[in-house]
This record gives sequence, structure tokens and C-alpha cells, in this order.
Amino acid sequence: MLSRRDLDFLLHEWLDVQSLCDRARFASLRRDHFDAVLAQASQLARGCLAPANRQLDEQEPRLTAEDVWTPPVLSEVMAAVRDAGLLAVSQDRALGGMQLPVLIEKAVTAWLFAGSAAATAYLYPSQAGSRLLQRHAGRALASAWLPLLLKGRATCTFCISEPQAGSSLSDIRTRAVRQPDGSFRLYGNKMWIVGGDHAVTDNIVHLVLARIEDDSGDIMPGVESLSLFLAPKYLPADTNPAEGAAGRGERNDIVAAGIYPQMGQRGATSCLLSFGEGNHLPQGQAGAVAWLVGEENAGMALVNEAAPEIQIDIGLSAAALGYAGYSHALDYARERHQGRFPGMNSQVGGQIPIIEHADIKRMLLIQKSYVEGGLALGLWCARLMDEVDTAETSTERARARDLLLLLSPVAKSWSAHNGLIANSLAIQVLGCYGYTRDYPVEQLYRDNRLNTILEGTHGILALELMRDRLLADDFMGFQRFAHEVEQTLGRAAARCGDVRHMAVQLQKYAERFGWVINRMRQEPEAGRRLANASLFMEAFGHYVIAWIWLEQALVAEVAYLSAYGSERNFYAGKCQAARFFYQHELPRIEPQLTQLEQMEMCALEMQSAWF
Amino acid sequence: MLSRRDLDFLLHEWLDVQSLCDRARFASLRRDHFDAVLAQASQLARGCLAPANRQLDEQEPRLTAEDVWTPPVLSEVMAAVRDAGLLAVSQDRALGGMQLPVLIEKAVTAWLFAGSAAATAYLYPSQAGSRLLQRHAGRALASAWLPLLLKGRATCTFCISEPQAGSSLSDIRTRAVRQPDGSFRLYGNKMWIVGGDHAVTDNIVHLVLARIEDDSGDIMPGVESLSLFLAPKYLPADTNPAEGAAGRGERNDIVAAGIYPQMGQRGATSCLLSFGEGNHLPQGQAGAVAWLVGEENAGMALVNEAAPEIQIDIGLSAAALGYAGYSHALDYARERHQGRFPGMNSQVGGQIPIIEHADIKRMLLIQKSYVEGGLALGLWCARLMDEVDTAETSTERARARDLLLLLSPVAKSWSAHNGLIANSLAIQVLGCYGYTRDYPVEQLYRDNRLNTILEGTHGILALELMRDRLLADDFMGFQRFAHEVEQTLGRAAARCGDVRHMAVQLQKYAERFGWVINRMRQEPEAGRRLANASLFMEAFGHYVIAWIWLEQALVAEVAYLSAYGSERNFYAGKCQAARFFYQHELPRIEPQLTQLEQMEMCALEMQSAWF
Repeated sequence: MLSRRDLDFLLHEWLDVQSLCDRARFASLRRDHFDAVLAQASQLARGCLAPANRQLDEQEPRLTAEDVWTPPVLSEVMAAVRDAGLLAVSQDRALGGMQLPVLIEKAVTAWLFAGSAAATAYLYPSQAGSRLLQRHAGRALASAWLPLLLKGRATCTFCISEPQAGSSLSDIRTRAVRQPDGSFRLYGNKMWIVGGDHAVTDNIVHLVLARIEDDSGDIMPGVESLSLFLAPKYLPADTNPAEGAAGRGERNDIVAAGIYPQMGQRGATSCLLSFGEGNHLPQGQAGAVAWLVGEENAGMALVNEAAPEIQIDIGLSAAALGYAGYSHALDYARERHQGRFPGMNSQVGGQIPIIEHADIKRMLLIQKSYVEGGLALGLWCARLMDEVDTAETSTERARARDLLLLLSPVAKSWSAHNGLIANSLAIQVLGCYGYTRDYPVEQLYRDNRLNTILEGTHGILALELMRDRLLADDFMGFQRFAHEVEQTLGRAAARCGDVRHMAVQLQKYAERFGWVINRMRQEPEAGRRLANASLFMEAFGHYVIAWIWLEQALVAEVAYLSAYGSERNFYAGKCQAARFFYQHELPRIEPQLTQLEQMEMCALEMQSAWF
Repeated sequence: MLSRRDLDFLLHEWLDVQSLCDRARFASLRRDHFDAVLAQASQLARGCLAPANRQLDEQEPRLTAEDVWTPPVLSEVMAAVRDAGLLAVSQDRALGGMQLPVLIEKAVTAWLFAGSAAATAYLYPSQAGSRLLQRHAGRALASAWLPLLLKGRATCTFCISEPQAGSSLSDIRTRAVRQPDGSFRLYGNKMWIVGGDHAVTDNIVHLVLARIEDDSGDIMPGVESLSLFLAPKYLPADTNPAEGAAGRGERNDIVAAGIYPQMGQRGATSCLLSFGEGNHLPQGQAGAVAWLVGEENAGMALVNEAAPEIQIDIGLSAAALGYAGYSHALDYARERHQGRFPGMNSQVGGQIPIIEHADIKRMLLIQKSYVEGGLALGLWCARLMDEVDTAETSTERARARDLLLLLSPVAKSWSAHNGLIANSLAIQVLGCYGYTRDYPVEQLYRDNRLNTILEGTHGILALELMRDRLLADDFMGFQRFAHEVEQTLGRAAARCGDVRHMAVQLQKYAERFGWVINRMRQEPEAGRRLANASLFMEAFGHYVIAWIWLEQALVAEVAYLSAYGSERNFYAGKCQAARFFYQHELPRIEPQLTQLEQMEMCALEMQSAWF
């Protein structure tokens, strides 16, 4: 589970969420509102999702004649989250939402992920999905489907990958055929659709990437001719399907053709969906009824608009799963007695709690620095979403947008990679017990393994970061981040001691990253420019998290001075984790930076025949 | 699966296994003998163990009223391995073995692990166990039980851990009570006993660490008063139990009280065994019948004698599981078409095999350098076992023993840690497919996760390496290894080009490790001396594998010059993997060495209350 104390530190002492209440959108809010929602999320995660998580692992969804069977406990979880009102935390009050900052919504989502990633997999896509619909669906379409999502009567999916086009979206083949009434019919297969079919909610709202056929029945290739469609599992009962989603009508022509049995997150259906195969319709009427969202051929733009939020969600999932593992490992390490201090005679003293062993502390510190760091970065990105939406000046909004585009893939990739390492170390702290299914840490590890793959693999996100953010003509995100770092360094320069030492290190790397990016931008050949993208992503991620830890240390170091008892321990822990990250973790990017500076091409030069 | 070509390279071109045929023990052997055994192992691994591995995952062992149910396929695998004569590859011909080098036996074991770690878990302890019995059990005991192990009529376990004494052997409590006939009765609980109970073979031979009660019924604490016992699942039918194991008699007082459901290696029973609870015996006759192996209070010495072999086995298991994952990833990457080269227009060319992408090559090269490196180190250690047994001079035998004690824990820890990373990258190459149970890579990953815990966790082995090898008065192992490295560097100095560059890097680190160890030996405080043991183990492991890759490159670079076609590609791949390890992997120890040199104490100084 997450630590509420840490979350309060991040939200209030560091991100100053209350300052958002000065803005019109959040005018009537107070800390009480935030606290109440977070308390509810924490209670649900502990009392409802976490206990259900093992059952979701053991009772896997399966195909039925009708759709997909899921264990009853999933329905209970969904009902509990819905009843707690946690499905529309950041949405407009006019739509039935709470209209709290996205930052609070993402903190809630992190709690739910910590409780059960498999259950939350059904829920989180609605957040980005409903924002897309609100902004880009026509009024009729939005008013028909948004309320279903926000009230938890439908879940949302993004249908992007296809069998022949996993990460290569230019090869998507799903066709959309225009109908006389302005709607479309979809034909094609979509893969890896998490929550792609189930009977937990009345309906499912699929957001589907497809190509519109021209008059001669052809489709254009490339990513520029993709459009986004809304295709529900059940059509509305009403005759005007774009308007009357209140009543549930006929089954749409969408079928779960397969479920992939996964290593973890077994309770989250990962489906192969067939659109337009005609199984539920009379002869000749095949085709999944769908309505265009946004403009024609704007599909990629819409997917790209939703991407930062989805990346933040997955990053928070990874950090939260790591956090839950860390929390179990910590409890275990305090309770389990085993061994003695070096040099202690076994014939005299009793065994000590394993948390007193240096190597256990090392493993716990790595976990702490990763999971608290990953959570902090995810929340910082969520705060940027609020800035994009509500900052007062267009300059501030543009700054936030640039930073968001740069850092949300980093939050996703870094947390997925390092959250998993944290989960592995949690197993290691428990030893053989950790490897058994009698303790939750092994499942958390399996569950988290999905996150370096889901919603853009590590390698694909790294390529995109390099190509679209750093090597693009306008690499404003990086420049703005350099400015953020500068400001942090400025505040640290006024201090003495540890924080100042950290700042000196960070400054050194800030300069080297600037140099590396310039070097890469000068490389004429695309293959060489992009060859070390993953290496860059890993090094850059550690650098960003080092900045996050300096930010936290700046707050904690001051608070420590006037704190007592457990509060003092809390701040001391924050400071020590920051120190640890700077001593043990940040220096790891040194050799990576050297390779990047030297444009090391060993992998690129490997021939496939040599393997 | 392993690559037979690679294995031949390691065994013949690098380790020159045929040179062993000059020694009396192996006098009548030729390459044909080795080849035949390896071909059989490869065939069994591919045709029998690998196909069974998924079933062993899905049909988990369970407790029955009698003992433990295991799936029928396990019995088939055991019969196939037994019928192929692969259970006594290195044992004396006089005992029914093949009397081949241990090196060949371990290559066979690696094949079996690559096929199924869960099935092989029942088999490999017999190798170290039978060697212990041959050397230390009395003649009657050995002749009663050894043939059962070597003919596959019994499996062997090492019963060491207890609920209150996982890694802390000084806290073992199992009691051994002396009987008038010279045998003992055991009372206590043993945990995590892999293959601890099953009905696949006629019997099970448990080697149990326990404390002998003195006349007043007390036991002495500490590791110095542990003794090793042989306690079979079934007593012999014969009246003299130490002699007549031919017929199977009564059930001994040993019961599987629980099975731990594991994340992976699910087919390998991990048991809680109760000794002497009297469930199978008339009132008052409780106690598991057991016979002393070796001297009284020599238990730890015997366990330590077996440890290097067990560590080599686990290291080979980890490398082989990583190897199997790599081999699947490689096949997939050659077949799967997805995406295009950077800058290629999606509207013109078709998709390319993903092995052509730089990032996929990077992931495959990491895997290649890890799994071939780990296999090579494991086999090098196995070669040392042959040297210990058969080298002509006592100086050579002593050299081999020192190196074995230093490097077998490294082979275990390094391969467990990095083999798992290789398995994770294999999943990553397959993307979402890799995360499903439709492909074997996810199970290989789950299976391999056990190896950083089993037979001494990463942290415990690192502590022991530091305390017993590097900081001990006589740190001969390290000095001898430094000498090995020097010799390799000498050979490399006579070359030019890449190999020479590698040698320069390795030399630099050789000096720094010397410095670091001296620095640590001077540290007066035990806590500080040992605080960074894991960090040392990780850095030292990478350094050892860098040496292994230089050794391989020295051979491959020359062979490349006169090779054609696929042979030339093979050697080119070896050279490129060596280059890659020196460019991407070895430099990673740079910051670790800096921390070790600075005696960085961040983790040690963390207070448990600060977490």
C-alpha cells in the first residue's frame, strides 16, 4: 500500500495542491475535500481492492458464449469504487464529477493501483477517454456516452494494436465505412485490449483507431489517415444511436475472439476483439456501428493528446505496485528475526530483526528511493495536467504542455523499469517466503512486469522521446526542464550541507545532458541518432528522479529541523533516501552518458546473422 | 535451449576438455564419448523436458494422505533421464557411472535445466549428494544408498533451513538422539526442501543438518556443533538398516507437512518436512531413523564441501534458463515483421523482421553476453572441480580449490541476477506476446526468479564471499584469480585491435579491485567491512565475466580469420558480444568501484525508524 504520510508530503508540502484553489475551477475547494477523497481511496484500496487481488489472480476471466466471465469479486470492487464516487474525481461538476484537480484524481488512481492493478485496469482508461470525448466528440455523442462512463455504467478501452501492427500504427488496417446517417461501420481486429470484454458494467465504450474508406472503397496507408471512433458494446435502445445511450439496446457487432492468459494482472482481460464479423447481426448487416470522434484523419492527434495521461497512469501503476511491495517488505523486515550483527556471538544474543542488517536496509532504501521517486514524478506530471488546463497565462500553459510531453513518457518508462526492480527486491527481502504465493509480493512483481510493455514498450517510448521531443526542431520540453532544474539548483545553492552536494552533482549532469543532446542533434544519420534511445531514456530517467529527490530533500531538510518524534523520522528518511539516490543510483548514469557522448554503435553494428 | 555450437566452442575450443583424457581417470575416453552424451542431453532437453515444462507449471504438486502427488509427466521425465544414463555421468565406473569429467556432467545438467528447471530440481542434488556420501559416509552406508541415487531409484535432498533459521545456520534446532545400534533419531522441522517429498522414485535420501544431544539431553548452539545425517524416506527392508537398502521397508518418520505454492518452478515441490513427529510409527517409537555421515560435528564442513558444486548447479540453472529465453527471443525476432528502419517511408516498403531494429539487437546482445557468459563461467568452475580431483600436482589441485571457493558463489550470484535480466529482456523482445502464457518466456522468467534466493540468497553469498574469502587471513582465491587475469592479459598484449583494447580496460579494473580489497581489509570495524558486500559481489561478478569474455574473444578472434559461412558468423558474434560487454556492461562497475573505494555507508547509516 501507499503511505498516506508520504502522499500528504508530496501533495501538500511539495506540490502545494491547495494553491490550485485560487483558480476559478477549484474555487470552492478546501483541503478537507482532498483529504476526504484520499481517505476513501486509501480505505477502498486496503479494505476492498487488495483483498480481492489474489482472487483476481486465481480466478481468471474466460470466454463464454455471450462474452467474458469475470469473477464476482470484480463486480464488487467496481461497485465499491463507483459508490465511493471515485470514478469522476476531476470531471466537471456539470457532468456529475467532483471537479477536483487532476493531481488528486491521480493520487486516488495510484491508491487503486496499489490495491489491485488488475481491477484498476478496467477503470483508469475512462479518465483519459472521457476527457477526449468531452473535448472532441460532438455534443450529442458526448452527452450520450460521457454520463455512462462517469457514473460507472460503462468502462472505456482504447483499441489501437492489431495483429499485424503491434507498435507500428502506420500498418493499422481496421476499416471504417461511412453510412448514410453519418455513422460508420468498422471491420477489423484489435489486440491486447485490456478490459476489452466483460459483463461487469452495462456497456463498454471502445475508442477505436481505424481508416475511413474513400468512395472507391480504398483506404490510405500511414498514420496521417487514421481516425478515432466510438463503438459501444451495446447499441442504444433509442433510434438515434448518437443521442440516446440511456437505454441499452442490441449487441453491437464486436466480439471477444480470444483472451490472452497473462503472467500477471490475470484478472484484467486482455482481449482480441473482432469488429464487424457479423456474428450478432442478420445476414448482410455486419459491421460494428461507430461514430467519429473529432475530425476525420485526426485519429493520431487524439491518441497523442490522450497519451501523456495514459503514460502517467501506467507510471503510477508501476510506482504503486512497487510501493505496495515495498510496504510489505518493510513490515516483514521489522517483524522477522534472523541472524545477528557482524561479529556478534551466536551463542550469546538472540536473533535480530532483519531490518537491522545493512544489506536489508540497502534493499529497502533502493525500493524507497524508487517507489517514492516514481510516485512523486507521476504526481508532478499530474500537476502539469492541471497547469495545462487551468494555469492563468498562456505562457504558463505552454510551459506545462511542453514539460508534460517530455516527462510523461519518462514517468511511464522509468517507473515501469524501476518499480519492477523494487518488486523484485521486495521478494528478496522475504527470501523464500517472497517467492511463494502465500505472500502478495510475488503477484505484485508479476503484475508489474506488464508495465514496461503496456501502452508503448520501453523501446518504443524511448524512440518517440528521442525522435519527437529531443531531436525535433522545437525541443522546448528539454529546454524548459533544464530551466526547472536550474531553479531547483538555485534554491539549493542557498543551502549548505548535503543538499548542496547533491546540487553540485545534478548540475554536472545537467550540463552533460545538454551536451549529449546537442551531439545527437548534429548526427546526420537517422539510424545512428536513434540507436541509443533506450540508453538515453534510462539515463535521463535517473537524472529526472535525482531532480525529484533534490526537490523533496529541499523540503524535508527544513521540515526536519522543527519536527519531533515520528515526524522527525519521516523527514530524516526522506533526506537519507535522497542521499542514497545520489550516492548509489545517480552515479550509474556516468558510464551511460559516456556511451551516449561517444555515440557508441556496438548494437547497431551487430549483424542478425551473427546471433 | 542451449546452442550446441556454443557448448562445443566452450568445451573444446576454450576449455580443451579433451586434454583431460591424458589423466588416468579419463584415460580411455575420446571426444566421441563426450559428444554422444551431450547429444543425448540435448535431445532429452528438447524432446522431453521442455515439452513437459508447461505441464509441470500447470499441474502443481499437492499433499495427499500418503505423501505428495506430482503430475505423471514428471515420472516420464525422470524415467527418460534415467534410461539415458544421465544420472551418473561423472561417477566412478565401479559404482555404475560413466566416469566422464565433471565438466561434461555439468554441461549435461545445463541442458536439463534449459529444458525444465522444475524437473531438474529433483535430479541435480544427487550429484553433490552422492559425492559427499562416497567421500564421507562409512562403507556400509555408502554401498547401501549410493547405488540407489546413481541408478535413479532415489533422489537426494539437502535439509538445512528451518522455520526459525532460514539463513542463520547457527540457529538450527533439529536434534539427533543417539541409539544403541549406532544410528540416530531426528526430531525437528526443515523448510524449503526442494523435491522434499514425491512418489516418483522408490525412495528419497535426505541429507539433514542436526545437533547431537549429549548424555544429559542438551544440544550445543553454534555452527560448530552441527552434524550431517542420512535419513531416507523409506527404511530398508533388511534388519541392518545401514547395509541393506535393496529392499524398501517401512516408512521412516518423515512427513511433508506442507508444500509452498511458488511463483515459478511450480512442479518442484518446496516442502516443509517434519522429522520425528511419530505419525507413521507406533506410540513411543517416534523419531526419524538416520545415520551419521562423516564425523560428529563436521556437518558444516561437509555442507561447505558440497556448496561450490551446488552453487555451480544453480548458476548453470540460471544461465540455462536465461539461455532458453534468449533462444526463444532470437527465433521470434527473426520471424516477426514489424516496423521499418528509421526514415523509411511506411507507404513504400513492407515491415522488416524486428531483429533488424537497433533496440532489439541491443536487447539480444545483452542476453547473449549474459547467458553465454554465465554458462562459460559455470563450466569454467566445473572444470576446476575436475582439477581439484585429478590435477597431477598438489599445487595445481590447491590452486583449483582456491579458485573454486572464490568463483563458484560468483557464478551462482552473477548468473542468477543477470540470467533473470536476460529472461526479462526475452519477454520484452516478444512484447505483449512475451507476457502471455502462450509463449514459454514468461515461465522461464518466473522459474529463474527463484535462483537469487535458492541455496544462499544473493546477500548471504555476498557476505560469505567477503568475510570468508576476501577478508580472511588467507585470501589466496583472489590472489590466484588475479594471476589468472594476468595470464590472460599477457596473451592479449601480444595481439592488436579490439582484444588489446579490452585487455587495457580489464587491467585497469584488476588494479582497482586489488586496491579495493586492500582498503577493505584495513577497515577495523566488521559492520563497515561487510556493509557493501552485495555491491562488491555485483561489481566483481561483472569483472569476472569481462575476463570470461576476453578469454572467449581471444579464441574466437583467431578462429574467425580462417572460418567461412555460418562458422565465420559464429565467431563474429562471439567477438561482437565481447565488444558489447566491454562497451556497455563492464563500465557499469565504474561507479560501484567508486562507492566501494569510498567505503560509502549510506545504507548502514539508515535507521530502521526512518523507513
